[in-house]
Amino acid sequence: MIKKNKQTIGILGGGQLGQMLSNAAIELGYNTHIYSPDKNSPAFKNSTYQTIGKFEDQKNIDEFINNVDLVTIEFENIPLSTIEYISKLKPIYPPPHAIRISQDRLLEKNFFIENKINTNSYMNVESLEDLSRWNFDKKSVLKIRKFGYDGKGQKIISSYEEAKSAFISFKNYPCLIEEFIEYTKEVSTISARDVHGNVYSYNPSENIHKNHILDRSFAPALINEKLDMELKKISSKMISQLEYIGILSIEFFVRINQQTNQEELIVNEIAPRVHNSGHWTLDGADVSQFTQHIKAIIGTEISEPQLIFITEMYNIIGDDIYHWSNIKSTENKKIYIYGKDEPRKGRKMGHVNFISRN
Amino acid sequence: MIKKNKQTIGILGGGQLGQMLSNAAIELGYNTHIYSPDKNSPAFKNSTYQTIGKFEDQKNIDEFINNVDLVTIEFENIPLSTIEYISKLKPIYPPPHAIRISQDRLLEKNFFIENKINTNSYMNVESLEDLSRWNFDKKSVLKIRKFGYDGKGQKIISSYEEAKSAFISFKNYPCLIEEFIEYTKEVSTISARDVHGNVYSYNPSENIHKNHILDRSFAPALINEKLDMELKKISSKMISQLEYIGILSIEFFVRINQQTNQEELIVNEIAPRVHNSGHWTLDGADVSQFTQHIKAIIGTEISEPQLIFITEMYNIIGDDIYHWSNIKSTENKKIYIYGKDEPRKGRKMGHVNFISRN
Repeated sequence: MIKKNKQTIGILGGGQLGQMLSNAAIELGYNTHIYSPDKNSPAFKNSTYQTIGKFEDQKNIDEFINNVDLVTIEFENIPLSTIEYISKLKPIYPPPHAIRISQDRLLEKNFFIENKINTNSYMNVESLEDLSRWNFDKKSVLKIRKFGYDGKGQKIISSYEEAKSAFISFKNYPCLIEEFIEYTKEVSTISARDVHGNVYSYNPSENIHKNHILDRSFAPALINEKLDMELKKISSKMISQLEYIGILSIEFFVRINQQTNQEELIVNEIAPRVHNSGHWTLDGADVSQFTQHIKAIIGTEISEPQLIFITEMYNIIGDDIYHWSNIKSTENKKIYIYGKDEPRKGRKMGHVNFISRN
Repeated sequence: MIKKNKQTIGILGGGQLGQMLSNAAIELGYNTHIYSPDKNSPAFKNSTYQTIGKFEDQKNIDEFINNVDLVTIEFENIPLSTIEYISKLKPIYPPPHAIRISQDRLLEKNFFIENKINTNSYMNVESLEDLSRWNFDKKSVLKIRKFGYDGKGQKIISSYEEAKSAFISFKNYPCLIEEFIEYTKEVSTISARDVHGNVYSYNPSENIHKNHILDRSFAPALINEKLDMELKKISSKMISQLEYIGILSIEFFVRINQQTNQEELIVNEIAPRVHNSGHWTLDGADVSQFTQHIKAIIGTEISEPQLIFITEMYNIIGDDIYHWSNIKSTENKKIYIYGKDEPRKGRKMGHVNFISRN
């Protein structure tokens, strides 16, 4: 057995989130071990140890478990059986039940309702019979329950016929059908809870998507104090209810309630990990979401993050990289290039934080 | 402190189920303590100790907790806060999370879906907006999520307008709307799980309702072997999944699947307790559901119940009691009179087990 004088944090997944988590962990004095099926994972180059392996590969997973002191994830769609297997041998954060809920849109919605958190109308769809029970007079969205991302596996629907062909195109996988939300804004919260039960949220950010991919986020979101308070309250309730450890990201829609004519929050989805809409914290807060996550899972007491600059984050997507790779960071413009091998369409290649110093 | 040489089983609720549970417990050598808000509770006269008190009454509940060694329930709609309070001080079976699920039709349906147990299409309804998302082309049922019983708080619905007035008549309480099931049979299972993880089910019974109240049950149900196996399998899966201790009752519909033309099972609801459709076990099985429940919760290893007679149970309801109170039990006809004070319409006053000895 090899002795090591540092603790090692295992990270499942090798994308840019793993890369930035790994950087934060190393800076805090830990070793990191990235486990990813993709040999070109950008996080590999920023980590102490690497394994190229499928998540279902028992031998590689066993080696990984032996080499690390605790485990976290940088993306949620890791087979639950792997998560549960690991959890029997080493601490894994966030807790498996929270990962399970976030992997299935139905469990997620059920969790919202069971905890009295305002969400839109929805119905489970596992058959055309189920589908025929939904009223298509108003615009709806059909989404596969598992493994959808960036708008994949979802379709806006105006009729039963459209829904039927979408359901079939999703290969009859279990789906969710839900009310299409006419929203005025999209906002998200990044919250952390440590093992001591401390819960803190960053200022909510406002997010703008293009082609179902996050284009830019800025914080603090331009919302009134009432919504701001409510976002904090709901996020804190959710993270505590989940007995969660680490960073939890929550996306909300803001819409005008037709009855009251007031703005209201509708929770859209949760991600059991650091989030693209929290990249602004690398420059706009006194502690980044990555550092906060590592602190929370390693057992230190976290502190309330402070806003230091109004910050806008802009994603560098696909071919944009050719423009940005020649530009240098300045005091007010911090450029992050992930070093991915090829700039495919829609692929997140880096991001820029624009800092406002007034 | 008074010393007692017997363990005392506390039972929340004082109806006929509590009465028969108390009889079984006393026969097994335990004391019983019935806690019920109703001074005329039929179970009082069959128990060692009695408390008349509201379930929310802290002082009475504290006294009750001090006097008992463990707690069980004879009806599910006991305030969850009381259940959880007790569970921190004394063992309570079934476990609070199972009671929580069975108290809310939405949590119950979600539990079925999350565990891949076939149920009908449904949707959560907390507003008219939610309601408008449901398609009323086919017959549906609107049910209040909590505290419904014997057909109360539910209505068959054919249009949005009907649903709307039903929802309003239910005072806008959270509801569930679901597909109306055209079933050919209603069957139920009574299963038990002990602390050692042993799981056994009785032969399924077939149930006939009149005016939403169980009229008669007979066991074994007249179903083919495939359905019989499936009922056992699903029941065993559910009770294990819930990490349940005690008797769990599950009601199913049998319907003809339009596509396959085969009979299929649709789970309707669960009850976290002994059940009216299991009263036949008092005479038709080698161990009654009441004895089986007490054995399971007290920590003994339960055995697989054996059918000894084909039995039909007939409920004595309301005024029927005047007829039956003058009749004597015979070898093939066992009459149970609960001793309730007044025979109100629809009130279960007793039951008769008709035994077939061929």
